[in-house]
Amino acid sequence: MQLSSKIIEQAVESFAQLPGVGRKTALRYVLHVIKHDTQQANNLSKLITQLKTDLKFCERCHNISEQVICEICSNPTRDSSTICVVQDYRDVLAIENTGLYKGAYHVLGGLISPLEGITPSNLNIESLVSKLAGGDVNEIILALNTTMEGETTGFYIFRKIAPYSVKLSTIARGIAVGDELEYADEVTLGRSITNRVPFDSLLKK
Amino acid sequence: MQLSSKIIEQAVESFAQLPGVGRKTALRYVLHVIKHDTQQANNLSKLITQLKTDLKFCERCHNISEQVICEICSNPTRDSSTICVVQDYRDVLAIENTGLYKGAYHVLGGLISPLEGITPSNLNIESLVSKLAGGDVNEIILALNTTMEGETTGFYIFRKIAPYSVKLSTIARGIAVGDELEYADEVTLGRSITNRVPFDSLLKK
Repeated sequence: MQLSSKIIEQAVESFAQLPGVGRKTALRYVLHVIKHDTQQANNLSKLITQLKTDLKFCERCHNISEQVICEICSNPTRDSSTICVVQDYRDVLAIENTGLYKGAYHVLGGLISPLEGITPSNLNIESLVSKLAGGDVNEIILALNTTMEGETTGFYIFRKIAPYSVKLSTIARGIAVGDELEYADEVTLGRSITNRVPFDSLLKK
Repeated sequence: MQLSSKIIEQAVESFAQLPGVGRKTALRYVLHVIKHDTQQANNLSKLITQLKTDLKFCERCHNISEQVICEICSNPTRDSSTICVVQDYRDVLAIENTGLYKGAYHVLGGLISPLEGITPSNLNIESLVSKLAGGDVNEIILALNTTMEGETTGFYIFRKIAPYSVKLSTIARGIAVGDELEYADEVTLGRSITNRVPFDSLLKK
């Protein structure tokens, strides 16, 4: 698709760098910006620069934060001896929205993936291990995707923290609430039987 | 979804105003911007404002343009006595990319749609009719979508330009090149039979 204007061409290129956006979708966005009011466009433009200037990564847990230490890490009511290890910011949001977790987090910034060229050194794994050296951490909970990359990363962390006396757990895999057994895959169903829980644990929620 | 940062929240709101973008997709875009280099973000930000400052609508055909009169309208080799009426900029692009049309355009800026509150007065129809008053226009080609809105707009224009002695045609509806007859719908197949063309017209292309 040949575009008639250089500015439109550049804007399409720029929008097309966003994840999952091709040139056609990018052009839709560009035309939307052109057609709608200047206020809306200026607002979006300003916020994009602000994302880069005003946000940083928390020095303790590597979560996205407006301060040097994020709100979760600096909250004294949260249990910093329990660390939930997640892939990225969205997983922190998802777990926070359950309202059931009161510990700290550690954001890896990705998962080990040789295909995409992501090695352990690209991830925040060393800083996790160094947290254990202090001896203040009791439990590490792995909350990673059940994909090849997630499992690989999990095993890598498991090996890395083996020398320390810390409890390592992983979030439960099983049948999603509301799902029907007959449509569940064998692996999930198998794991949910192996890791069955006492029935009265349901009554606490 | 509750977001922890006000800037992220505002940026998500702003991205979610783009067509077809919900809050989850907007958050993906925001995280992409945060994670990738500042150069890329500044570029996108600058181009969004530039779209509003540097682009205008051509005074003659209402197409998006960097000049007051667009490149197509100001091109002396194009036949300004033939006007192709389209819904928006993307249709101009699509027709230009065929390389088979050498006339001028007239961009309506939308289609009549009572449901969306778009009436003829919201569209560039009056300026089309006023072009005919000069008597320099020989043919108007309607290249509108085959939807309820497209057909309504077509009939409205047909009535509006009836007083003028100008040829009015519409692009051919028929079986797409490469399509199989048995999968075509009846309306399309019916129209393609009614509007059959001499076989030797194929040989010219």
